[in-house]
Amino acid sequence: MKKNNLTIGIDVGGTNTSLGFVSENGRLIFEKSIPTFADQSAEQLFSRLFKEINTSYAKFIKKYDLIGIGIGAPNANYYKETVELPPNLNWGTVNVVKLVKKYSSLPTVITNDANAAAIGEMIFGAAKRMKNFIVITLGTGLGSGIVVDGKLVYGHDGFAGEIGHTIVDPEGRNCGCGRKGCLETYASATGICRTVFELICNTNLDSSLRKISYESLTAKQISEAAKKGDKLAIEAFDYTAKVLGLKLADSVAHLSPEAIILFGGLALAGDLIIKPTKRYMENNLLNIFKGKVKILSSKLPGNYAAIIGAGALIWNELNKNK
Amino acid sequence: MKKNNLTIGIDVGGTNTSLGFVSENGRLIFEKSIPTFADQSAEQLFSRLFKEINTSYAKFIKKYDLIGIGIGAPNANYYKETVELPPNLNWGTVNVVKLVKKYSSLPTVITNDANAAAIGEMIFGAAKRMKNFIVITLGTGLGSGIVVDGKLVYGHDGFAGEIGHTIVDPEGRNCGCGRKGCLETYASATGICRTVFELICNTNLDSSLRKISYESLTAKQISEAAKKGDKLAIEAFDYTAKVLGLKLADSVAHLSPEAIILFGGLALAGDLIIKPTKRYMENNLLNIFKGKVKILSSKLPGNYAAIIGAGALIWNELNKNK
Repeated sequence: MKKNNLTIGIDVGGTNTSLGFVSENGRLIFEKSIPTFADQSAEQLFSRLFKEINTSYAKFIKKYDLIGIGIGAPNANYYKETVELPPNLNWGTVNVVKLVKKYSSLPTVITNDANAAAIGEMIFGAAKRMKNFIVITLGTGLGSGIVVDGKLVYGHDGFAGEIGHTIVDPEGRNCGCGRKGCLETYASATGICRTVFELICNTNLDSSLRKISYESLTAKQISEAAKKGDKLAIEAFDYTAKVLGLKLADSVAHLSPEAIILFGGLALAGDLIIKPTKRYMENNLLNIFKGKVKILSSKLPGNYAAIIGAGALIWNELNKNK
Repeated sequence: MKKNNLTIGIDVGGTNTSLGFVSENGRLIFEKSIPTFADQSAEQLFSRLFKEINTSYAKFIKKYDLIGIGIGAPNANYYKETVELPPNLNWGTVNVVKLVKKYSSLPTVITNDANAAAIGEMIFGAAKRMKNFIVITLGTGLGSGIVVDGKLVYGHDGFAGEIGHTIVDPEGRNCGCGRKGCLETYASATGICRTVFELICNTNLDSSLRKISYESLTAKQISEAAKKGDKLAIEAFDYTAKVLGLKLADSVAHLSPEAIILFGGLALAGDLIIKPTKRYMENNLLNIFKGKVKILSSKLPGNYAAIIGAGALIWNELNKNK
């Protein structure tokens, strides 16, 4: 019997690392998550990961061949095949592709999680058949993956696609990058929590969110409050969308994409974020772009999108060589 | 005797239209300029242009073959081969490539002037051997041509590369596009004139420029005053560079280019604009980009750069098919 091919998708996160087997049509055949242990080295993580992969694959070996490995990781560089000084992992700088060679001879590709998400959307998700689009991941920070003419934009050094660090206001909020006023300090799960606290401070709007401390507040709570009509929560979404829409209009002026796809935690708020972002973006678009650029939600299955993106990354690479 | 090949480069401007014959190594073998007559139709212009081309080519026919036509024009669309409602020409929407077919069977390509400049820099100028760079034209407005992985970025509809219409301040200066605060209202030959008048209004700086009316003030006068130590003129360059540097840092965050090349009228001020723009851009760059992105002057010969860019556009196209 002819066996089908699968790729291995690996999504390295600060807390957990997920792995899965992804079919050519984007089905997740198997999925498992293990703790990353941020204080451990990359070697230790990959040693544990490949034990899991080998054990798990045993159950699939009769039906499937594994043909490649795609990895999404923070601060990953596609060209250099490295992860460089990830802020939440005690890795230093590691050549991950070289490291993987200790455990597997399969072709291996690495990129950052937002780029993997973009390839995932292109092959299996909301950007199918699109050649020019942008994926924005709204999680703890704001990541982005830019696709031009069907290919990810890496720039001359592999680090392109940092829309989260375009500047909204040079005198604005402190950013984790050491500068001020970056887009991700406004438009991200963390950014909307900061906005809620700004509104608590500056307005007299009644709100259930006034009972919650900054440390325990989540974007999900804000979204639930907004759905119940909480004016402060609705205002927080509106302000987030206003800033995001303004800056996305700048991205459109650079790249004229067919669509911008919102992905990750805050994007799960759906129309609460999509509709006002679209409206504010339209207001700020140059006339030749007006009414042309869609804003869409990710179509990858929420919890597994990052693994599927990583699997898609290597599918895309293998299909290039066909 | 084997004849050498030349392309025809045509640069359509609001006042004059230039044509030239461009060799494969970027030499301008012949150049001529005719009035555009903005109130005439595109048909009338191209009829006059091809008369010139045919008359002029007669002197070169023994030594050279003409093998293609490249056209740079305002509001040109590479995909659709059209010029659409150019603000300074009474053309309406014209399919220029179809129009050219009446006069010549040579392969013809059209794009906007900033994109043609970018291809010119890539093949013959400051971006030789670069695959990821941005050309910024600082003329009456601010145009831009973005190259990723050796190819011009056109976006899904042919209109990408409008960095001049990214927004510096949503409540800022009125822009010709109908919106407010676009980059080109600050960083362009016109923008720096506006800044001089803002400084005349807001400061007590002594300046020779206080004698000049807005309508007669030119960027060249500001540059000459600055070179003589005029503090207001120097301040105007500094402010222009501050705004440009801030927004170019956003462009770098999108695209991670190897270099940004400044081209056109205001760029002729050289270090007066290049040095402070570089400094302000560096101050606003995310750490992973710091110290990596060059800011360079155009290396195409000033007066003929646009024709050479148009000639390069079609050379690039012809060489793709080799």
